[in-house]
Amino acid sequence: MPFTPFDWIDDEARRRAAAGLVRTVRPRGARPESLDLASNDYLGLTRHPEVTAAAAAAAHRWGAGSTGSRLVTGSTALHADLERDLADFCGFEAALVFSSGYAANLAALTALSGRGSLIVSDAGNHASIVDGCRLSRAETAVVAHADPEAVAKALRAHGGRALVVTDSVFSVDGDAAALPDLAEACRPANAALLVDDAHGLGVLGEGGRGALAAAGLAGRDGVVATLTLSKSLGSQGGAVLGPARVIEHLVNTARTFIFDTGLAPAAAGGALGALGVLRREPERAARARQVAAALHTRLTAAGLTAVRPDAAVVSVRAPSADAAVRWAADCRAAGTAVGCFRPPSVPDGVSRLRLTARADLTEEQITTAVATVVATAPRQAGTDLSG
Amino acid sequence: MPFTPFDWIDDEARRRAAAGLVRTVRPRGARPESLDLASNDYLGLTRHPEVTAAAAAAAHRWGAGSTGSRLVTGSTALHADLERDLADFCGFEAALVFSSGYAANLAALTALSGRGSLIVSDAGNHASIVDGCRLSRAETAVVAHADPEAVAKALRAHGGRALVVTDSVFSVDGDAAALPDLAEACRPANAALLVDDAHGLGVLGEGGRGALAAAGLAGRDGVVATLTLSKSLGSQGGAVLGPARVIEHLVNTARTFIFDTGLAPAAAGGALGALGVLRREPERAARARQVAAALHTRLTAAGLTAVRPDAAVVSVRAPSADAAVRWAADCRAAGTAVGCFRPPSVPDGVSRLRLTARADLTEEQITTAVATVVATAPRQAGTDLSG
Ligand SMILES: Cc1ncc(COP(=O)(O)O)c(C=O)c1O
Ligand SMILES: Cc1ncc(COP(=O)(O)O)c(C=O)c1O
Repeated sequence: MPFTPFDWIDDEARRRAAAGLVRTVRPRGARPESLDLASNDYLGLTRHPEVTAAAAAAAHRWGAGSTGSRLVTGSTALHADLERDLADFCGFEAALVFSSGYAANLAALTALSGRGSLIVSDAGNHASIVDGCRLSRAETAVVAHADPEAVAKALRAHGGRALVVTDSVFSVDGDAAALPDLAEACRPANAALLVDDAHGLGVLGEGGRGALAAAGLAGRDGVVATLTLSKSLGSQGGAVLGPARVIEHLVNTARTFIFDTGLAPAAAGGALGALGVLRREPERAARARQVAAALHTRLTAAGLTAVRPDAAVVSVRAPSADAAVRWAADCRAAGTAVGCFRPPSVPDGVSRLRLTARADLTEEQITTAVATVVATAPRQAGTDLSG
Repeated sequence: MPFTPFDWIDDEARRRAAAGLVRTVRPRGARPESLDLASNDYLGLTRHPEVTAAAAAAAHRWGAGSTGSRLVTGSTALHADLERDLADFCGFEAALVFSSGYAANLAALTALSGRGSLIVSDAGNHASIVDGCRLSRAETAVVAHADPEAVAKALRAHGGRALVVTDSVFSVDGDAAALPDLAEACRPANAALLVDDAHGLGVLGEGGRGALAAAGLAGRDGVVATLTLSKSLGSQGGAVLGPARVIEHLVNTARTFIFDTGLAPAAAGGALGALGVLRREPERAARARQVAAALHTRLTAAGLTAVRPDAAVVSVRAPSADAAVRWAADCRAAGTAVGCFRPPSVPDGVSRLRLTARADLTEEQITTAVATVVATAPRQAGTDLSG
């Protein structure tokens, strides 16, 4: 009998190739080879000398790894410092650091819901939230994107313990959730509100304190935030912020905390370094938002269809998946790297270019980027599609 | 109406306190405060100057973070080097690096199974494997621990696409899976074999090439390994190793690859540095096994009940969860840090001390550790319980 347990993989590969949906890993060099509007380095801190020095110093001082679960040997004073600093900066009572933002979302969703409870989740939420809902064993009501009334309705229909979860800034279109409306919807149902501030931290709120600070919801009872250290803070890792009892509960029950090795010291150190820079230079947050607004204004003025950005992500519609891939490749060939979202990464099936408005882009770079995106646009972009 | 969505958490906290099962985070300092037999730093490489220097150099050269998904800006030449080196070292065609071993397991399980397929999973498998099974939407047959015949039976009962998953070395008891027998069970069912070599890499096989190399199964069609970079390699991150088509499939479909930020350069650099040391000093692997054997021999000679170690984990039985916690605390107070496993982290409800046999423990340190564990043992240990 032939032993070929993976032959089905070839069939799937052929189907992907036929549909033009093959993804490939393209390793890059250390020096920027092009103008970067593709990364999530919103504040331009990943290569900031103070941030890389903090990461390197942490590796030297604490070792290359944390050596174990956070509950055994993987918690250092550096982790505790980072947790204190994140909680203080964002205005929460306590914080818990994870090896990734993905792990933080899995932890928060599984630990704060469970069988018999309800999770109400926006249809545009990040994959890690979707996976957290799946792992939670809770009943999950996926509601229409950006529809607080639908959230209220789902909560009324349930009655029992409930949690509402949303991205603060949606990673595909860069639009912000209506957090005050969601908080309102939670109140009569006594439901908790979990906000993934991956794309809000460092960009929204005074000095980049995040979407919950901006909405006046940080530190409120019943409100929990998840963060990633891998975007504005230029490092790696994630965190959950909330009331101290919620954090204690996670320490005791969250599987991606208990059964995962603690975040590497270099990543914790890098994130702490980035927080330090951001505290000293709070204008970086506003600058990222200004760059996004400038990109949007100029791209739409040139006839393209782009979503008005609420944070630092500018999403430009493409007429098809194929066209989006070609468009992004043409931009890269012309020296500007942009992101490209297409099925199955986009819940609505609409392909887009995704531009990152870094705080450290110069006026000249913005002009170059806009000129490149406009010059390489497929003919139908902006005419066949409405925002 | 009072707004108190998290009041149920206090009830759970009270229940935990009453059951003596409260977990707390105890941040440690940078210098070892005690003799470490608790971490997973099996080869003593986390603080090796070459490893920390490689981590620090990577942060300086590549930045504190990878800046994006591996499919956008998060793949560097450093990631590609690490993937090449891991695949070569362990004897596989290709490798893919993740932000954690947890994420690697979620990726492999979800991408290589799916609705309608069967996963056969050992009852002692790690939490990340359990979560991967839950996320996969596959039918999961949990079979008795270390029972290849039960695996064969579960496969026969199913018939369709199937995947058998096992830890190579079980993290709680330190016993090894019978990989050749499992491979035999897979063959007639044309089932794939997925082995989590978190505790085998660096310890088992010639020069630490891992459990699959030791079993002559590395690189075989139908065989996939997951690794963590956070134990023997002293860093952070995870990897999946297998045939090139499997790796391509993961690139295209694994959600914890596509929707997660790439591993931080410092972690990739640290792991590469550790692999370099291990290639040059292959005796570290055998030494870790010798230290484990010595610990086991001396602890059982003193009347304690310990599982004969197949790798570098030595598990010593405790009469109760309370006794285990006190025992571990007494060891720590006496200057030797050991791990403590108790419900709900142990599937069988049996509490244990968990000792790590680091390759760099001296004879004197081994003697001290054994004397401490024996001197602090609860009276019932070793008499009330059989291995
Ligand atoms: C909204 C959102 N949440 C969570 C994550 C996961 O964070 P991390 O990459 O740190 O795992 C991401 C992106 O990666 C994201 O865009
Ligand atoms: C058997 C096993 N698999 C996977 C993991 C997860 O690896 P990581 O900590 O790198 O996420 C661990 C431990 O943490 C483990 O013991």
